[in-house]
Amino acid sequence: MPASTASLDTPAALIDRPRMQRNIQRMQQRMDDLGVRLRPHIKTSKCLPVVQAQIAAGASGVTVSTLKEAEHCFANGIQDIFYAVAIVPGKLDQALALRRKGCQLSILTDSLVAARAIVDFGQLHDESFDVWIEIDCDGHRSGVRIEDAALVDIARALGEGGQRLCGVMTHAGSSYELDTPEALQALAEQERQVCVSAAQRIRAAGLACPQVSIGSTPTALSALNLEGVTEVRAGVYVFFDLVMHNVGVCRQDELALSVLTSVIGHQPDKGWIITDAGWMAMSRDRGTQRQQHDFGYGQVCTDAGDWIEGALLTGANQEHGIVTLSGAEHVDITARYPIGSRLRILPNHACATGAQFPHYCACDATGEVQIWSRLHGW
Amino acid sequence: MPASTASLDTPAALIDRPRMQRNIQRMQQRMDDLGVRLRPHIKTSKCLPVVQAQIAAGASGVTVSTLKEAEHCFANGIQDIFYAVAIVPGKLDQALALRRKGCQLSILTDSLVAARAIVDFGQLHDESFDVWIEIDCDGHRSGVRIEDAALVDIARALGEGGQRLCGVMTHAGSSYELDTPEALQALAEQERQVCVSAAQRIRAAGLACPQVSIGSTPTALSALNLEGVTEVRAGVYVFFDLVMHNVGVCRQDELALSVLTSVIGHQPDKGWIITDAGWMAMSRDRGTQRQQHDFGYGQVCTDAGDWIEGALLTGANQEHGIVTLSGAEHVDITARYPIGSRLRILPNHACATGAQFPHYCACDATGEVQIWSRLHGW
Repeated sequence: MPASTASLDTPAALIDRPRMQRNIQRMQQRMDDLGVRLRPHIKTSKCLPVVQAQIAAGASGVTVSTLKEAEHCFANGIQDIFYAVAIVPGKLDQALALRRKGCQLSILTDSLVAARAIVDFGQLHDESFDVWIEIDCDGHRSGVRIEDAALVDIARALGEGGQRLCGVMTHAGSSYELDTPEALQALAEQERQVCVSAAQRIRAAGLACPQVSIGSTPTALSALNLEGVTEVRAGVYVFFDLVMHNVGVCRQDELALSVLTSVIGHQPDKGWIITDAGWMAMSRDRGTQRQQHDFGYGQVCTDAGDWIEGALLTGANQEHGIVTLSGAEHVDITARYPIGSRLRILPNHACATGAQFPHYCACDATGEVQIWSRLHGW
Repeated sequence: MPASTASLDTPAALIDRPRMQRNIQRMQQRMDDLGVRLRPHIKTSKCLPVVQAQIAAGASGVTVSTLKEAEHCFANGIQDIFYAVAIVPGKLDQALALRRKGCQLSILTDSLVAARAIVDFGQLHDESFDVWIEIDCDGHRSGVRIEDAALVDIARALGEGGQRLCGVMTHAGSSYELDTPEALQALAEQERQVCVSAAQRIRAAGLACPQVSIGSTPTALSALNLEGVTEVRAGVYVFFDLVMHNVGVCRQDELALSVLTSVIGHQPDKGWIITDAGWMAMSRDRGTQRQQHDFGYGQVCTDAGDWIEGALLTGANQEHGIVTLSGAEHVDITARYPIGSRLRILPNHACATGAQFPHYCACDATGEVQIWSRLHGW
């Protein structure tokens, strides 16, 4: 195990553990204050020690984006798992296998067709699945709209078919497009209000709908009131990233994930510093492209993590990154950033950048590094 | 091992083996006709059976983008390996270890600083590295310009320091931005001419420069004459992709990599089909965004691989893809593409999409599937 970042090969995905721990505490405290459970979405880290830190801080179960994540969590002692992507009938076998082993896995649907497939499969295998209904609160992706008759029909079909309705859930993914506290608070209230109304519609039809689950990192950090909500799901807050910084829900010193890279060359005439962090390390995510500040492929920092103002990863090939500096004409880049020297790059999108690496290098305040493996694939 | 694609979980990365084999034959035949060796760049597939098919067809050694690829190839019997990213001194230990095991690994530099570091390290460890000099032929990334005095200085420093100069290499990466045969032929000739001239400059200084290595898939498929060139490197031709289709160097029926996905929902009012191939499966690569035809996150095909005109993956969240159809107002999408049905998505960029998967599902003409693992990380 490497003793410090100086001994790491590059590129490497670094987690700043003290920052991560503060991010976990910040979200958990907020949810505690608002009186709701926090069910972190582990699709950001896909990494057991990160998830364990979230649970140790008070999280209640986890949210997963793949059944592979569910299997990995369950194999490591986590029971309460919500697979928060509408299930396709072909994955019910895998879900059933997990439940038969004792996993408290819940699944999701947003259509009568899929609900009936769950009922048919459940009846065939004498299983009563725990099922959530996905609600569309902002038109950005999936979910039933609350005025759609399908909402109550799905709830009724599940109940009559011997399945257990956990409740309704929604995700205000459009929050990533906002950047003022007022707009974020308004969307957080819309997310809450729509999802609570969906539960009320189901209850008004005489059906049980115990839980109301909402969440996205920006709305979770902006909501002023979560009346009627029972749990919040959020993911990227554990590391934050430049997209979240542009949205306005984190400070520079809260960004906990960065990519350590080596300088491998220069094109002095163009002011280019060439690094070994290309898109294979950073991902192709350009999430800040249409935000208030476009960070290219990432914000460049010193080896110690200090933000170098005006230094961006402006170009990325597979294993080559091109760093440019504002005011580069006044800097001798080959002397200031010599071959073999190291930089750190803050990513646009922590979920996408993390996925490029088989493991994280988790650094504590003393600079000691632990290798934390993460999941890849499905 | 699954017997057919019907039994595969989604998302899955499918290789159409007959297409791949034809792509390999096409490039190999072309290089044979032009009288140069082909040294395929394996950064596209990072997959041993693919590389073995390239070697079986006549390829001469391999090009790699990481030392992990080099180690994997060498462990599987491939000796002649060119690590074609300018080496940073911190990676020389790893390169030396490979050579000490008998690997014929060659390395790359484009600066006097790095060349001197190679010399110092080589002398310290009594090793004579095989070294290439990178030439900048089109200003798109790294490399020494031929008029730069550093070119001969690097060659001399290596030779005087007991290292062996293999030759000069260049990569006309700007070819990805072109889309006419005339422009591609002109760039291919520029790539050849610049690299041959670099070799001539070194030779004119009385130094040996045995090899001239050029290459990119578009220029390799466009060059009319490779006089003075000894080898060509190319990678993405093995699968091709939508970017290459826009460049104009492959037909629809040559695209050998696709992502198999399941329909998981619909938003009929918007004409959206929701799939389980989001950006985690496709990557965030939007390489066709500025080309003549923007394919969004991918071209949608039927389960059998037939191109559905006007059907694109226009949106991508982590595990959700949004497919839209031109003329969707005339299609009952929930009936035509029901939940659980399957589609295939052709990627913008095969290198980026492949990297999202731990393995490929390689399908032969009978539909039988083999699982081929691929490398991840560094």
